[in-house]
Amino acid sequence: MRTFRLVIACPDGVGIVAKVSNFLASHNGWITEASHHSDDQSGWFFMRHEIRADSLPFGLEAFREAFAPIAEEFSMEWRITDTAQKKRVVLMASRESHCLADLLHRWHSDELDCDISCVISNHDDLRSMVEWHGIPFYHVPVDPKNKEPAFAEVSRLVKHHAAEVVVLARYMQILPPDLCSEYAGQVINIHHSFLPSFVGAKPYHQASMRGVKLIGATCHYVTEELDAGPIIEQDVVRVSHSDSIEDMVRFGRDVEKMVLARGLRYHLEDRVLVHGNKTVVF
Amino acid sequence: MRTFRLVIACPDGVGIVAKVSNFLASHNGWITEASHHSDDQSGWFFMRHEIRADSLPFGLEAFREAFAPIAEEFSMEWRITDTAQKKRVVLMASRESHCLADLLHRWHSDELDCDISCVISNHDDLRSMVEWHGIPFYHVPVDPKNKEPAFAEVSRLVKHHAAEVVVLARYMQILPPDLCSEYAGQVINIHHSFLPSFVGAKPYHQASMRGVKLIGATCHYVTEELDAGPIIEQDVVRVSHSDSIEDMVRFGRDVEKMVLARGLRYHLEDRVLVHGNKTVVF
Amino acid sequence: MRTFRLVIACPDGVGIVAKVSNFLASHNGWITEASHHSDDQSGWFFMRHEIRADSLPFGLEAFREAFAPIAEEFSMEWRITDTAQKKRVVLMASRESHCLADLLHRWHSDELDCDISCVISNHDDLRSMVEWHGIPFYHVPVDPKNKEPAFAEVSRLVKHHAAEVVVLARYMQILPPDLCSEYAGQVINIHHSFLPSFVGAKPYHQASMRGVKLIGATCHYVTEELDAGPIIEQDVVRVSHSDSIEDMVRFGRDVEKMVLARGLRYHLEDRVLVHGNKTVVF
Amino acid sequence: MRTFRLVIACPDGVGIVAKVSNFLASHNGWITEASHHSDDQSGWFFMRHEIRADSLPFGLEAFREAFAPIAEEFSMEWRITDTAQKKRVVLMASRESHCLADLLHRWHSDELDCDISCVISNHDDLRSMVEWHGIPFYHVPVDPKNKEPAFAEVSRLVKHHAAEVVVLARYMQILPPDLCSEYAGQVINIHHSFLPSFVGAKPYHQASMRGVKLIGATCHYVTEELDAGPIIEQDVVRVSHSDSIEDMVRFGRDVEKMVLARGLRYHLEDRVLVHGNKTVVF
Repeated sequence: MRTFRLVIACPDGVGIVAKVSNFLASHNGWITEASHHSDDQSGWFFMRHEIRADSLPFGLEAFREAFAPIAEEFSMEWRITDTAQKKRVVLMASRESHCLADLLHRWHSDELDCDISCVISNHDDLRSMVEWHGIPFYHVPVDPKNKEPAFAEVSRLVKHHAAEVVVLARYMQILPPDLCSEYAGQVINIHHSFLPSFVGAKPYHQASMRGVKLIGATCHYVTEELDAGPIIEQDVVRVSHSDSIEDMVRFGRDVEKMVLARGLRYHLEDRVLVHGNKTVVF
Repeated sequence: MRTFRLVIACPDGVGIVAKVSNFLASHNGWITEASHHSDDQSGWFFMRHEIRADSLPFGLEAFREAFAPIAEEFSMEWRITDTAQKKRVVLMASRESHCLADLLHRWHSDELDCDISCVISNHDDLRSMVEWHGIPFYHVPVDPKNKEPAFAEVSRLVKHHAAEVVVLARYMQILPPDLCSEYAGQVINIHHSFLPSFVGAKPYHQASMRGVKLIGATCHYVTEELDAGPIIEQDVVRVSHSDSIEDMVRFGRDVEKMVLARGLRYHLEDRVLVHGNKTVVF
Repeated sequence: MRTFRLVIACPDGVGIVAKVSNFLASHNGWITEASHHSDDQSGWFFMRHEIRADSLPFGLEAFREAFAPIAEEFSMEWRITDTAQKKRVVLMASRESHCLADLLHRWHSDELDCDISCVISNHDDLRSMVEWHGIPFYHVPVDPKNKEPAFAEVSRLVKHHAAEVVVLARYMQILPPDLCSEYAGQVINIHHSFLPSFVGAKPYHQASMRGVKLIGATCHYVTEELDAGPIIEQDVVRVSHSDSIEDMVRFGRDVEKMVLARGLRYHLEDRVLVHGNKTVVF
Repeated sequence: MRTFRLVIACPDGVGIVAKVSNFLASHNGWITEASHHSDDQSGWFFMRHEIRADSLPFGLEAFREAFAPIAEEFSMEWRITDTAQKKRVVLMASRESHCLADLLHRWHSDELDCDISCVISNHDDLRSMVEWHGIPFYHVPVDPKNKEPAFAEVSRLVKHHAAEVVVLARYMQILPPDLCSEYAGQVINIHHSFLPSFVGAKPYHQASMRGVKLIGATCHYVTEELDAGPIIEQDVVRVSHSDSIEDMVRFGRDVEKMVLARGLRYHLEDRVLVHGNKTVVF
């Protein structure tokens, strides 16, 4: 069923819900899902509606025009999207295949509602797997002594494919700051620890050293500061003294791919609203 | 902060949210929490608002009067409650203390927002614990050959204390059908299995016999059919071959008390809407 | 690291561990993992050792011969396996790809230590995916009016490939009793409910009807009675009123594939000891 | 059933299990539970046996004498305990009652097998609750400008009661280094975060600031470095944007008390072996 998704964030106040729901009702909009959140600490209000497209008398552009005065009145940050327009996603990976294979399978079995424009990797290992899915694969090696040319090429490819979302599916390279800021809120990473614990390299080794009893993974938006961006989703799995670092890595793979898939899905469904360094996930 | 809680269930349609939020906005109502659910299968719509009492120009009675026409228009089943009026709760227990002690402690430390009118038990074991909390304790023994007098007395006590909620905190007796139907949607039980598995007596023994790898507990409204009422909350805990039935009973106690406390809290906060044999828990 | 796995079940008594560990120590066996379980209810004792192959002076056959007297003395049911001899696995699937794709990827990325001899399916949909992995795919359609020829062919293929393990990765057909008994303890199924709840067809529909708050999956050995065999592994995921049956099916897929992968791994590593209708999983 | 618990840690090697199990078998010891762990990273071996006391021909002292040569041969760190000798526990608390009430109830209902010698608190609030259980309560206020006299008194009380275990049940004061080192491996703390995240004060505020999607609690041995000691047990609970810091504190209480109760139980049952800054928990 085709729906429009109306996503709003604005300073809290009386009458916002009434104004928005009146607007929708006056155009006979059939709301299939509605979520609200008043944030006491920031004094902001967040809202997401899913509306049957066939119940409305107009398309996206006309909706935007009609709604603009309300948005202005309440100083809203807002967007409306149409499920008929799939988001274009670029996946980036390195050598480890578990996250990439998981996302490709979900996409291939119609679970992930998006277009995967291409896969970019700094290694050529996963080419055959990607191409079997009928998706272009670009091998862009990263020279550790001079990473700039590689990231220029990555940037060119992302632009060329008009990507709306970039997913770092265990890409294992740190994106340069300009790319981070150009695509703020659009680059999704999976970090293989329960952040903020074990930032940076080899988190399972760090976890083993500290002797934790649960390990985890964190899906977050990439910002200039490493592993410090707004968290979308996290999960953990129990480990014990009998689990070696190799066992942790193996358990971790399952958590990583599940957390990344959930986080990406929330993003694709316009369920994630970033405010400061935190997220509302409806 | 004192709030009013407006809880609505009605056949789904366009304009319900608009009408309700307009009503609230027109009276300057400050919504602190709002939840909606459209149920595709039943075609019903469910809604809960929490509104700051001090933002409204009227009290509960005037609210009811003003809202009645809207309720009628949409054939709503609805209620409005005031957090300033604590619900009167009667707890029933037997010999096992874990659920009772847990609820009493939560109440005593101001975590459970209700009045506990009294505790009724078919055994006298827990009297001292209850009385230390300053709560009346009634010992109503149940004669296995003639249970009627006991349940008549239970019924009298529940009426006498004008209970709005009855909690079977491991009471271990089956309530008679007339009591179940008189207090439909008001009697909350904790069953020590993950329903619908292991209905009836000795569920941990049943679980051990079947060799399950997780055991659970279920908080549900009591209906005439044993362990078959609408489920409010459930949870599980992992067990293994090395856990004896005694271990399961011990692990189970922790799940039981957590699940019961969560379920009761949802009920006290008017978060549970029963529809048919299912619940919406906002 | 190549290891031998010594797996023992016998009536409990004093001196078993001493005898076995003496035997191992006297041959200089380096134990890398040891697990014990005394079952009070049945009076049986279970034991599993993993021993470095290069620490022992003999191979599997000589080990068997040398150990036989001890096994006889304590009336042991026992086996010893060599990690250098990968188990031959036949996968069976239908149209749904998630479990099959997950197992194939784990195998392809060296996470599952086995040989996958072939995939048998009653539909041809997944052929390309299987063949990309370099694994033979057999399409054996099942005629609903006369299933016998299909199962004769399945039986022939399983024999032809000398399968030691058959995995029903959402095969959706009930195996005939003779196949079940011929491969007792060797056929692993994933059922898409938290057994013993919701046996048989459409468990997510059953779960939705009952209004449960968690759904699950169960990995078990297939026996003649439907969905009633010894349970190897189970897990659950939380659902709410807002989740449709389609959502449950989607969440369920993730639980199913995780539970099946774990269950199969335990089996391949000789960690599962069946006793009566229960399992010990070391 | 009375048992002896034999707990061993030593450099790994061939023949340890054989020697120990021979020793036990030669004295007709009936092993009810046995656990082993070889740690690859450290090269150490860990072992725990539970043996029926009535199956052995001698008591604790004679056992110690008889076993000493084996212990010496393998350079074992070891201990043997008798379940008939309950450990003496001192509980320390502040104003928050949830952990203390939980431990007291478990003890009162015979779930925690120990003697609770007394409760020490820097506030007098929980006196009545403690004394209802028949346990001495000491109010030892801590002067923020001069904490020394308070800790001298705490130290005196712990010695006076010959405590073997000190439990900081949300005591909220940092113990002085000399007390930490005098009772190394005997002081158990519950920290209200998923360590190593959010060390120190107000972890739920820190968690809210970082926008994590799970919060947790950690039970660990106290060492001189704050919140950095060996971890015994951890657990987490899911939170969302809709949960205020107060909600987190409330959810956290349940995790804290469960994690502390499990950690303490493991310690009381001699299941925890500390090695470096990590634990083996059998």
